[in-house]
This record gives sequence, structure tokens and C-alpha cells, in this order.
Amino acid sequence: MNRVDLNCDIGEDFGRYTLANQKEILQYVSSANIACGFHAGDPSVMRETVKVALDHGVKIGAHPGLPDLLGFGRREMAITYQEAYDMVVYQIGALQAFLTIEGEKMQHVKPHGALYNMAAKDPEIAEAIAKAVYDVSPDLILFGLASSELTKAGEKIGLRTAHEVFADRTYQKDGTLTSRKQPDAMITDQNEAVQQVIRMVKEGKVKSRQGVDVLLRADTVCIHGDGEHAVDFARFIKGELLKNGIEVKAFI
Amino acid sequence: MNRVDLNCDIGEDFGRYTLANQKEILQYVSSANIACGFHAGDPSVMRETVKVALDHGVKIGAHPGLPDLLGFGRREMAITYQEAYDMVVYQIGALQAFLTIEGEKMQHVKPHGALYNMAAKDPEIAEAIAKAVYDVSPDLILFGLASSELTKAGEKIGLRTAHEVFADRTYQKDGTLTSRKQPDAMITDQNEAVQQVIRMVKEGKVKSRQGVDVLLRADTVCIHGDGEHAVDFARFIKGELLKNGIEVKAFI
Amino acid sequence: MNRVDLNCDIGEDFGRYTLANQKEILQYVSSANIACGFHAGDPSVMRETVKVALDHGVKIGAHPGLPDLLGFGRREMAITYQEAYDMVVYQIGALQAFLTIEGEKMQHVKPHGALYNMAAKDPEIAEAIAKAVYDVSPDLILFGLASSELTKAGEKIGLRTAHEVFADRTYQKDGTLTSRKQPDAMITDQNEAVQQVIRMVKEGKVKSRQGVDVLLRADTVCIHGDGEHAVDFARFIKGELLKNGIEVKAFI
Amino acid sequence: MNRVDLNCDIGEDFGRYTLANQKEILQYVSSANIACGFHAGDPSVMRETVKVALDHGVKIGAHPGLPDLLGFGRREMAITYQEAYDMVVYQIGALQAFLTIEGEKMQHVKPHGALYNMAAKDPEIAEAIAKAVYDVSPDLILFGLASSELTKAGEKIGLRTAHEVFADRTYQKDGTLTSRKQPDAMITDQNEAVQQVIRMVKEGKVKSRQGVDVLLRADTVCIHGDGEHAVDFARFIKGELLKNGIEVKAFI
Repeated sequence: MNRVDLNCDIGEDFGRYTLANQKEILQYVSSANIACGFHAGDPSVMRETVKVALDHGVKIGAHPGLPDLLGFGRREMAITYQEAYDMVVYQIGALQAFLTIEGEKMQHVKPHGALYNMAAKDPEIAEAIAKAVYDVSPDLILFGLASSELTKAGEKIGLRTAHEVFADRTYQKDGTLTSRKQPDAMITDQNEAVQQVIRMVKEGKVKSRQGVDVLLRADTVCIHGDGEHAVDFARFIKGELLKNGIEVKAFI
Repeated sequence: MNRVDLNCDIGEDFGRYTLANQKEILQYVSSANIACGFHAGDPSVMRETVKVALDHGVKIGAHPGLPDLLGFGRREMAITYQEAYDMVVYQIGALQAFLTIEGEKMQHVKPHGALYNMAAKDPEIAEAIAKAVYDVSPDLILFGLASSELTKAGEKIGLRTAHEVFADRTYQKDGTLTSRKQPDAMITDQNEAVQQVIRMVKEGKVKSRQGVDVLLRADTVCIHGDGEHAVDFARFIKGELLKNGIEVKAFI
Repeated sequence: MNRVDLNCDIGEDFGRYTLANQKEILQYVSSANIACGFHAGDPSVMRETVKVALDHGVKIGAHPGLPDLLGFGRREMAITYQEAYDMVVYQIGALQAFLTIEGEKMQHVKPHGALYNMAAKDPEIAEAIAKAVYDVSPDLILFGLASSELTKAGEKIGLRTAHEVFADRTYQKDGTLTSRKQPDAMITDQNEAVQQVIRMVKEGKVKSRQGVDVLLRADTVCIHGDGEHAVDFARFIKGELLKNGIEVKAFI
Repeated sequence: MNRVDLNCDIGEDFGRYTLANQKEILQYVSSANIACGFHAGDPSVMRETVKVALDHGVKIGAHPGLPDLLGFGRREMAITYQEAYDMVVYQIGALQAFLTIEGEKMQHVKPHGALYNMAAKDPEIAEAIAKAVYDVSPDLILFGLASSELTKAGEKIGLRTAHEVFADRTYQKDGTLTSRKQPDAMITDQNEAVQQVIRMVKEGKVKSRQGVDVLLRADTVCIHGDGEHAVDFARFIKGELLKNGIEVKAFI
């Protein structure tokens, strides 16, 4: 495969509160995950964010999160299968309405934060989310951690899935991300980060911390929208991908 | 006209909290307004409520409210045109998703509580709501107080509107409801209440407190779901309407 | 020891939403845990609940919970030590103000729901809560599951603690409650439930599911305020305790 | 009088969201109003803000707001007397606990945003707030718009009040602020703004837009914490006040 999608999170403002850099990054990505009002975002932010993403020709996905604005959806919660299903249906619908008023379709759904992490490892939560997405529309693409319970659940139910990889994270020999509690979890060298992505895209492989290659499908790369150098890195990785003959392109 | 719609509010539970009688009343109404999570309702309640309404063959509308769970959406808030527009788009979308997973369409939108009252008298809020509904789908029917700013705004933008009347409220000679602060605001006699509705439906007229008849279109009657005798009154009014040759029927 | 405290949760209404039986039970208990607005309760409910508890001569404690109204504070959340500390300080303070306007002092603090369960087994959360209580006032009594991490943390920091036992739950040989997922978790026979409490109070022992006696300090018994027979059981257990020469009494 | 208090709003972050400049300004003010979790702020932000204010030797007040995080407490809401009373009691209590753990006392209470504006003109809301403050502690100082319903209500109930004036706003001949909808509402020239304050402090007078002098007590000056030049202006006004022989000092 010689193409890959670059996705980033946007629309994470709330009321009077804004987070930096959220719009500049849209020049470099092909897909954007828009917060839906549970962990971040509000109706006005969602409307504006949809518009600005469309202005940049970026494909839009819902970024449903846990109902925890205070914790920015980053604290795991002991939710049930049914609760996971219901909160995803609700949030997809809410965002869809802002696409509808612009005459646009939603491309994908990517769970946010703790919900993403829970879905990566918990088959029950993964299935609940996959089913919610499928029930709302079987045409939606489910974004999940590559080779995780979530992509597995999506494929089982018949959804098109996008395996997501990280440029700035290292991998274990079982294909999971190295825990952030480990000292070698992050790749801080930009060139190394980009080379990891290029190899994942071209060869479907990543060298794990244990030194052995791991097979990994890289359909989309998570680009962080925050941090001091986020926009710089987005520009850099997009340029390097193009130079290496990899097209940066969304799925629809 | 020899038909009328009976509508009631349902789906107003939240988390562990439940309100009484909300489902029994579905036997007697033709349309139901489902809370969308701002003033009441939550994703799980919305899913269950959509199902139970469909089981009863009742047509479903969104019941968007102010973002004020503590006040049950009953406290007027100084929101802007844009905020009103955005919160209505959001809430319609959220409910629509629960209809979509059941393969169903939404019939109508009726603003809740203080948002309903504000829309009845404030042309700006009325227009914001009408435009939100129209932009999401021009096929939706807008429910509003009969002869109010909201029905006016809906008609102006090209929406089908349903003029809503009240069985248990008295009217002023200008067609507005008598304020609840007045001693004669409520009609407590069930027969009188039903006779008022029958005349509004058949003749398009209601006798005002001042003694003069007022022209009023009665497309739908608001049936309260709470209160001790709510279910009894719903059964009674439906029976009386049928006896008087008036069909009780939703709009689609 | 020939006395014990009976405590129940009250003040769990929110806005328009009410839970049944919450006030009747005050006739039979000596201490009440009042929700503080995070998992349940709101400022108006808190003011009214404080008043009604004082009217019944019941001692008042704060019942801080997780910031999860939708889940009624019953879903475990991955909070940090600092977040636990801060949310407990906040909630104690909020409730204290309603006691202050009545010229009264707070007796105790008992974490609610998932926070209670987390504090029972997680030493870090337990310590955060104990420290929060101590820092606000070293005179407060900390209620926690008997022989749990929470009572341990409270004692370590120098707080007076109240070991809480359950009438309607069975115990394991290590002193923990039988998980509700087990078929034999609940004691449904009222007499058996009361006998278990009487023995815990008089002898400091409970017979575990494994047949061996476990030492357990029973300072306070948790009386459920909801459920069909809650009030009946409260009356019954209080009567039986008195008949058996056990005084029912709060701590201050 | 040759002294005046300078107050500013701080602690308005929430969860992951931060507002700029909030701490730098503490070098120049004598009192700080800390958000209490309703319109802004959260338990962790409150704890940290109390600490940083104390580190700067700034006196602390509660800044209770409407329960409207989305609108930052700036949208008027139709609340009742009782609701206003209860929400103020709650928020004072919550902040007090964070002062208690630092061994400190609260100096004052200043309602925030729409609640401040409502209290300035609505005698019922004003009385509710004044009574809430008084009931929690008659030693608290109530901050309100100079010569408003709020200071009036505070004085009537027996509270010490601080009449608040604005450096950057013009006044009408009845002593009210010129509405922001008017073109001449704001004073953009820093020298003019400071001269207005100096005259209010020294002479108790302000020249109204209509050209006539209005009597106004200036106990405290509202210093905005946000905006590009907020810190610069705070430094400037403090310097000018000192140069003109006016001491900048809190009340306790």
C-alpha cells in the first residue's frame, strides 16, 4: 500500500475555553475527529469545527468520549456494554446533525481517550462501540488501535476499519504500545518517528522494543493537535510521506 | 377538520431517576416528544423510550430543551440566536440516531419548557429554532404554541407546523394562554377541558376569558404525562374525541 | 459494646427528580449521610435535607461521591489521589455550609458508592480521602467498610473512625463482603440479618460463608433507604436491637 | 478616604482548560475572587488557586456563579430567591473548605457574571444573596456594584459591604454603568480610566456621560484578569494609585 490517512483530534473547545492550535493542523491532515460534547466540545464548537474542517477539505469523523468533561474523557470509567453503546449512538447522531446542515456525510468514528483505550483491550466495550457504529450506519469506518480488540470487533460485525498507528510511540513485540509508564514509550526524534511510520505503511511492519519485527496494518496515523511542536511535526511528517511516494489521503 | 393529534412528553428519566406514568400514557396519544439529554433524558433512556414509543405505534419527535438539568429546562436563560440554533441541531441529531438504529424517521420537533415559552414570544429565538429544524430536515414538522412566534417562524421558513393547543388552560382574547399567575388560568373540570378542545378542532375557535371568541388552529393537543390523573385524563379525552367524530392521528 | 449507630443515605433527590422513602427512614436511624451534589443532591435538596435530618435529631455526615450524576456515583472511575482529595474537600465544604446556616456541626464523612468501594480496597484512594477529611477537620468521624483500607487510613492519620457493617450482606473469611456476583451475597431473611448484626455488635464476630468466625468491629450499620421494604426493615432492626439491649446512638 | 482595594477574578480554569494570565495579576491586586465550580473552576483548580493567592498575600473571596459552565455564568437565568440563596451557600461552603485546609479565613463574597448583574438590579435576588452570605457568616464582606440593589441588601441585613467601581467603564447620571451596547460604554484610555478611579476614591464622585457628577463610594476596583493588556493595566493602575497617595489594601 502506498497511501495513508493522517488524522487529528479537533473541536475540543468548550464554552469560553479554547485549546490552542486546533485549526492550523487541518492543513496537514486528511481526517479529523470532532469531539461530540461529552468529554469536550459543545454544540456551537461542533458547528464551527465541522465548517472549518470542510473548508480544509478534511474528512470528518465523530470522536465520542466518556461523559467526563472534568477529566477530558481520559479517566477510565466502569461503564456497561449498554452504556457504551448508547453513548456512542448519541454522540454520532449529535455530530451527524451538524454535517447534515452542511450537506455532508460522516466518514468515520474514533473513540476518544479512555474510551479508546478501554475499547482497545476490552472485547465487550469494543463490541458495544462497533455495534453502535454499525447500527447507526454500516458505511461508517471504525478507527481503532491497530490489531486491537476494537478493530477486531469492527471487522467481525462487518464494518470497514482503519488500523491506527502512532508515529511517536514505541511498540511491544505483541503489537501493543509500550506503556507510557515505561521510559522508552515515546519516540522523541522526529526522523525516527517518521521512518517508523513509513515502514509501517510500506512494509506493514514495525520494529518492537524487543528487537523483533511485528506485523501491523497502518491505515491511519494519529497526529496530535496539541503540544508546542504539533503543527511543525504535522507539516514535517506529511512532507516526508509525500517525498517517500506515500499519498496522504482519507478513505472516502 | 375532523382530526387532531394528541402529544405528550416522555423519556424524561435521567440515570437512576425516574418520573412516573411516562409509558402508560402512550396508549392514548398519537405523538410523543422525547427529551434529548439537555433538560432531561440520557442516551440509555432515549434508546428505551424510542423503542417503547414505536411499540405503541406512536410517532416520535425531538423535545430539545435548555442545557439545565437541575432546572428541568424550565428556567428561561438569556441565550443567543446562535446558541438556540446550535442546541436544537445537536439534540435533534442525538435523538435521530436512536431512531436510525430502529430504522425509523422522526416526525416532529417541539421545544421543551422555557425554550418553548421563549420561542412562543421571542421572534429571534423562534427563527433560530425554525431554521435549525429546517436545516436538519425540511420534512420535520415544527410543533409550537398555536398562533405564536414559533409557528409563524416555522411557516415563514417553509416548514409544516402543528399548532398546539391546551385542554386545561384558558385563553386570552389575543389568543395567548392566560398566565399561570392568574387565578383563572387552569380548567380543572375535565368536561369543560374536553369541550374546549372539541370546539377548537371542529370550529377553530376558543372562547376567551374576556368572553369573545378567538380564532385558533388546533392541530395537536398537549397531554401532560405527569400528575395523578394524567393517564385518566388522556384516556378520557381520547374517548370523547372519538365519540365526537374526531379522529386522533399523528401527521405522518 | 452495647451500642451501635444506624446510618442511611438521604438527600439523593436532584432538581425535579425525587427518590422515594428518603425521609421516613429518619425515624429509625441515628446518623444520615447527605449527598453533596456530585453523584446526587443539589443545593436546594441539601438545605432541605439538613433541616429534616435535624428535625429528627439525626446526626449528619457528608456523603461525597464521584462526579457522575448520570451513573449515580456507582461507576468506578480512574481518579488520582489528588482528585479524590480535592473532590472530598469540596463536597464536605459545600455540605458544611448548610449545617452552618442551621448552627450545626457535621458528625462524619462517608464516601458514596464507587468511591466507598474504591476506598475500601485501594490504599491510595483511602489515604486521599482520610487526609481530606482530616485536613478539613480532625474532629470529623470517618465512616468506612469495617476492617477496610479506608478505616485503616483514617486510623493512621489520627481520625476517629466508624467501622461499618451490613445487615443484609454475607461476609468472606477474610472479612470482606461476598461479591454481589455470588449467589449467596445477600441475606434475605430479616431475622437472620438482624441476628448477624446483634452478634457483630455484642461479640465483634461474624460467621463467614466459609463457616469460620471473623473478627469485625461494628460501629455503625448501613441501612438502605430505598427498596420496597426499606422503612419496614429499618423499624424492625431498630426494634430488635433495643430488645436485645443494644442502644442505637450516633457518635456525638 | 485614601485607600482602595483592587480585586480580580481568578481560578477560572476547568479540568484540562486554562485561561491565560490568571496568576500574574496577583502581584498587583489586594483581593481575589475565586470561582467555585458552577460557572468555572473545579475542586483541583480551587485548591491550587487558594494556595497561589495566599502565596501572594492576596485576600480571598468566593465568586459564586450560575450553574452554567457552558455559558461561563454569563447568561441570565430565571432563578428563584431560594435557588439563588442555596447556590450561594453551597459555593461559599465549597471554597471555604479549601481555605480551611490552609488554615485561612474567607474575606468576602462577590457574585459572578450574570448573577452579579441580576443582583445589582433585582432586589429579590440581591436579598437572597445577601442573606446567604450573612447566614454562612456575618463577618463576610459582600462585594457588589456601587450603589446597587446588592450593596443595599447587604447593608440592610447587617453585612459590611464593598462598593465596587470600574476603571474602564463609563457611568450614567443615575450611577449605573453605561450599557455595553452603547458606543461610549468603555474607557479605552488608560490615563482617563485611572483618573476616574482616583477621583472616585478621593472625592467619592464620578463624572457621568451626561456631564453631571454622581456620588459613588469606591471601596474596591474591579481589575480584569483576562485580555491582552490586563496585567499591564493592573501594574499601571496600582502604580498610579500609590503615586497619588492612595493605599491599595484589602479589608481584613
